[in-house]
Amino acid sequence: MFNFDQRIELQNKSNDLFMAGEILIDMISADYTDDFTCRTYHRFFGGSPSNIAMNAKKLGIQTVVASAVGEDGLGSFLINELKTAGINADCIQRVTDGPTSMVVVTKSQSTPTPIFYRGADYHLSYTVELEEALLNSKIVHFSCWPLSRGTARDTIEKIISKARMNKLLICFDPNYHPMLWENGVDGAGYVKTTIGKVDIVKPSEDDAERLFGKHTHEQYLEMFLGLGVKLVILTLGKDGAIVSNGMETARFNTLATEVADTTGAGDAFWSGFYAAIVKGHTIRHALAMGFAVSAYKLKSIGAIVDLPKLEFIQEMYGL
Amino acid sequence: MFNFDQRIELQNKSNDLFMAGEILIDMISADYTDDFTCRTYHRFFGGSPSNIAMNAKKLGIQTVVASAVGEDGLGSFLINELKTAGINADCIQRVTDGPTSMVVVTKSQSTPTPIFYRGADYHLSYTVELEEALLNSKIVHFSCWPLSRGTARDTIEKIISKARMNKLLICFDPNYHPMLWENGVDGAGYVKTTIGKVDIVKPSEDDAERLFGKHTHEQYLEMFLGLGVKLVILTLGKDGAIVSNGMETARFNTLATEVADTTGAGDAFWSGFYAAIVKGHTIRHALAMGFAVSAYKLKSIGAIVDLPKLEFIQEMYGL
Repeated sequence: MFNFDQRIELQNKSNDLFMAGEILIDMISADYTDDFTCRTYHRFFGGSPSNIAMNAKKLGIQTVVASAVGEDGLGSFLINELKTAGINADCIQRVTDGPTSMVVVTKSQSTPTPIFYRGADYHLSYTVELEEALLNSKIVHFSCWPLSRGTARDTIEKIISKARMNKLLICFDPNYHPMLWENGVDGAGYVKTTIGKVDIVKPSEDDAERLFGKHTHEQYLEMFLGLGVKLVILTLGKDGAIVSNGMETARFNTLATEVADTTGAGDAFWSGFYAAIVKGHTIRHALAMGFAVSAYKLKSIGAIVDLPKLEFIQEMYGL
Repeated sequence: MFNFDQRIELQNKSNDLFMAGEILIDMISADYTDDFTCRTYHRFFGGSPSNIAMNAKKLGIQTVVASAVGEDGLGSFLINELKTAGINADCIQRVTDGPTSMVVVTKSQSTPTPIFYRGADYHLSYTVELEEALLNSKIVHFSCWPLSRGTARDTIEKIISKARMNKLLICFDPNYHPMLWENGVDGAGYVKTTIGKVDIVKPSEDDAERLFGKHTHEQYLEMFLGLGVKLVILTLGKDGAIVSNGMETARFNTLATEVADTTGAGDAFWSGFYAAIVKGHTIRHALAMGFAVSAYKLKSIGAIVDLPKLEFIQEMYGL
């Protein structure tokens, strides 16, 4: 049970966050188009766990990213970006099985339809170096992306098992999307099983609907908790979030006053929440800090913005 | 035996060229960089057989492209480009097995290293529609790309077999590159077997070296002919080409006077050669016309340039 007014006890380890999963290229159209008629694209550092790592580092906590890139120029670019940001890239594996993964997407006024180029990312292996870095960490985080295919799925299963044995805090972004999964695999079923093995999940309303069909917010909370997870953070976009630990359900309003770009708002939340948890804040306070960092991000364009230290944002939002 | 001073007898069919293989997105950096530090990329229509089809249509002959794209916006863009150019796109298959294939490459002063994102292209199936279009054609062309993987390889084998039975002219671009092939497959061996089943090949010196190791030009010609092909066009960049039918070997100088960009020069050659063959020119004359179209292309930047009708280029180069 995660009492909202208590801290989460973390182990005394040299690294704070261990992010497992995708690091990739976001190739984003320069103009707003819904149909890929746009001719010009810009290349960005991407992948949700990697973005969270970048943010968390800026907020002041230590992160390691475990992911796989190709033996190509885009892989070198990504590794270089991590290193420049001061993030440990020792667990970035270079594989010859495919190119550095990429998502091509058009800026859109409505909902953009990304095109996924899965390459190296799902060849992430469970290695000695990976295990060592994992066991030196307090928190492990992953999303649905590595679960959706091959070798990476087995690696995440081993990570979960090892992390449970060693009592790391295990957090999962159940951002389930059927498009990412191999044909014929029950992705939703697999994600539900995984939810039962972790401590904290942060589904969006869309994620919840893709997993369970259409229900009320309260029903979604019950459904996630029913799978065995200890804390559910159900995000509702501009309507904030509802969070439940099974005993208490709390509503959080958005702290955003100005919305320039919603890209990466979820990743910003995670990074603020983690930074606050690591720094010893209560769960209730860490959630508020997550929403504050998210609100700070929303004022700027891009997935990764120039975040200040957590303490600065805490003061700015009067928390 | 293809006598240089004779025409190639083609069957009386409604379509001239049947191009089988890749249609894809070329994502090319805006600036010259060798290491993918460039942030901006432009999206182009690409794939060698598809570029040849575009050129050949402009020169005045009928083409069909048989290829596979994903159920995505980039696939729709490619199909739309073909249709806008007046090319039959009935044999473009839309598959759910992967995204529209893409090649990301930086403009480079030296040799650029492309990154291949293979998706839909290698899922090209041999269908009733494909066979019908094939049997309505005079010439079939393919490159190494579809041979390098899975379903597309089987499809090309069936195309070759059907084309031989029905006496189409079969031409093959043996642009072998080990990077494209699955690990553990003897790509070079497979390409050599394929060369023995076709009428005409146009290797570059680099292709020849990748297939046979380092030898003289004359040895390369012998090696290709030894595999059973009837005509070998060995291109030598700025040094023109050497062509052999096994009995006569002829040297062709480049007709280029001005080189703005070498991208697509080989595809331009093929299209000029095909247009001239279809229009009843002798092999010797058709080769010269191919080099003329290539020289015309070299004056402009880009893989596909605004070619005039073949007769205009013929007059321009005094052929």
